[in-house]
Amino acid sequence: MRLAVIPGDGIGPEVVAEALKVLGEVVPTAEITRYDLGAARWHATGELLPESVLGELRQHDAILLGAVGDPSVPSGILERGLLLRLRFELDHHVNLRPARLYPGVRSPIADPPDIDMVVVREGTEGLYAGNGGLLRKDTPHEIATEVSINTSFGVDRVVRDAFSRAQARPRKHLTLVHKTNVLTHAGSLWSRVVEEVSLLHPEVTVNYQHVDSATIHMVTDPGRFDVIVTDNLFGDILTDLAAAVTGGIGLAASGNLDVTRRNPSMFEPVHGSAPDIAGQGIADPTAAVLSVALMLDHLGEHESARRIEASVAFDLATRDHASPGATYAIGDRLAALVSSNTRTTA
Amino acid sequence: MRLAVIPGDGIGPEVVAEALKVLGEVVPTAEITRYDLGAARWHATGELLPESVLGELRQHDAILLGAVGDPSVPSGILERGLLLRLRFELDHHVNLRPARLYPGVRSPIADPPDIDMVVVREGTEGLYAGNGGLLRKDTPHEIATEVSINTSFGVDRVVRDAFSRAQARPRKHLTLVHKTNVLTHAGSLWSRVVEEVSLLHPEVTVNYQHVDSATIHMVTDPGRFDVIVTDNLFGDILTDLAAAVTGGIGLAASGNLDVTRRNPSMFEPVHGSAPDIAGQGIADPTAAVLSVALMLDHLGEHESARRIEASVAFDLATRDHASPGATYAIGDRLAALVSSNTRTTA
Ligand SMILES: CC(C)[C@H](C(=O)O)[C@@H](O)C(=O)O
Ligand SMILES: CC(C)[C@H](C(=O)O)[C@@H](O)C(=O)O
Repeated sequence: MRLAVIPGDGIGPEVVAEALKVLGEVVPTAEITRYDLGAARWHATGELLPESVLGELRQHDAILLGAVGDPSVPSGILERGLLLRLRFELDHHVNLRPARLYPGVRSPIADPPDIDMVVVREGTEGLYAGNGGLLRKDTPHEIATEVSINTSFGVDRVVRDAFSRAQARPRKHLTLVHKTNVLTHAGSLWSRVVEEVSLLHPEVTVNYQHVDSATIHMVTDPGRFDVIVTDNLFGDILTDLAAAVTGGIGLAASGNLDVTRRNPSMFEPVHGSAPDIAGQGIADPTAAVLSVALMLDHLGEHESARRIEASVAFDLATRDHASPGATYAIGDRLAALVSSNTRTTA
Repeated sequence: MRLAVIPGDGIGPEVVAEALKVLGEVVPTAEITRYDLGAARWHATGELLPESVLGELRQHDAILLGAVGDPSVPSGILERGLLLRLRFELDHHVNLRPARLYPGVRSPIADPPDIDMVVVREGTEGLYAGNGGLLRKDTPHEIATEVSINTSFGVDRVVRDAFSRAQARPRKHLTLVHKTNVLTHAGSLWSRVVEEVSLLHPEVTVNYQHVDSATIHMVTDPGRFDVIVTDNLFGDILTDLAAAVTGGIGLAASGNLDVTRRNPSMFEPVHGSAPDIAGQGIADPTAAVLSVALMLDHLGEHESARRIEASVAFDLATRDHASPGATYAIGDRLAALVSSNTRTTA
């Protein structure tokens, strides 16, 4: 397993170190190459993602990313020039974001139900395409546009992926989230594709929700969701909200998948670089560790993925949530659990 | 006071009847004209908003709308052809949506703090502009676009309004919500306008949040928000979520304002036509009643607005939330409270 690691900024390197510690327990032979991309490199050299680095990244089986972003860098530079560039160049069309309320974890909602959903967020189109511009900047006649681009090709492949995932889950339920009553063009395409693909999955029940209404259910009735398929921006919003109701982005993992496997997929915690707590060794590495589990699943190492998940579940059920321990201590605990799990099941 | 009333579809007419009952207690002389727009008219005549009706609506001081929408009408027809057409034709650039957790009301979030925010949502631009289209429909090469249009003119006027409102509130705090790290063009315009207008309001503290992160705080720390200013789509999403955490869209009022007063402003509950409960007389008219209070505020009848709000607050603090009563009964209670309030303070 050839793994490229981009520790990134802020707490990125801190959580990545623990994620690799845990990975070491299940795949001790993983070959790891680190790439220093992010705020520091941009400040030092002006580089965001040199072509040569992109070429090297392509030679790996997967990429593990910590977090990028720093207040010293103007908003959008690292996001567009590095994170989104990776997602787009490597054709990460399925942005996979499970949200599960683990036993022992406190939800901000009162009397939470069982929550176990996965959001399949489109990753290479929509408002993230970077189309748009400014006209007559800094005049009273300025116009700023942002264009959401949705293609049959792009919507079809992510919807198919979402249906396959729904098919493989016990509840076999899929919810399309969009805003078809206002975004009538894109909404029409998304609705028609979901209808077409649903014919291939007669066992999967399908419903539709407007994005505004979906946010209501996310706090009043999140147990209703199984698989959600949605566009890039709605997926961004819904997955932060889903993470919040399942205990916070400190626990939320994600995979940016090229399901064709032509390019390496990239795994990253949903949280950002959290500059406010960086360098203190107090960041929770659980989301990064769970991202490793998603990576192992993608690479076909399902048993190792289950072991990591089980270890995280055990730790969350038993940890003192008021003081879960330092970043390294949580990593040590998880590594030990995975290691004993490994010995037991080996 | 010349008031145009559009009862609309589903529970629209039911809640509007109660709202008018309450209005009758404070402005018994209001001249009311009803307009039958909505699903029934569209089915019967194909009409959505005839020019002649639009012309008549313009002759009023304000418009009260129940709700439009019915499952028998394809998604988007009534929304684009009637509701959004009214908002755009009448230049309702400030979509005002307060969200307050009233004593006695149960929030779905555990241990909710004091919540008292107002979302100032832009109402005439953004992704709601209706720009975009379908190319090569029903082919494998189909492309659907949606264009978010943001103008200096449009952003400036709504940001100014939001700052004035923040200035008039005790906490004097304003949060811009956007996604500047991805929607860099529109984000740049919104950020620059907020910065410029903030110079005119040195007492107002300003911060910025990405929309995804704002949804997290909406459930983990909603007390932090005072005035939020945001674009049309983000405002749509955030106000449903804000309504959810403050007890549900059954209580959420809104005003679509032309703050220049060139056109009548329009007031409507945030909830939809709720076809599932229509005709049963069980819809909660409180949101419609609170929308009347917003209308009275806009028309300068502040004392009457306060009376209605106080009556709603009293009713919410004392009602049996498990069985709040029939639509008409809630209306009767509120009307009686307003009437006794009127007598006491008169
Ligand atoms: C940092 C930002 C560009 C990114 C996104 O919007 O996709 C983040 O919010 C996420 O969800 O991974
Ligand atoms: C019905 C729909 C067009 C509308 C909107 O998106 O503005 C509604 O959700 C609202 O918030 O008033």
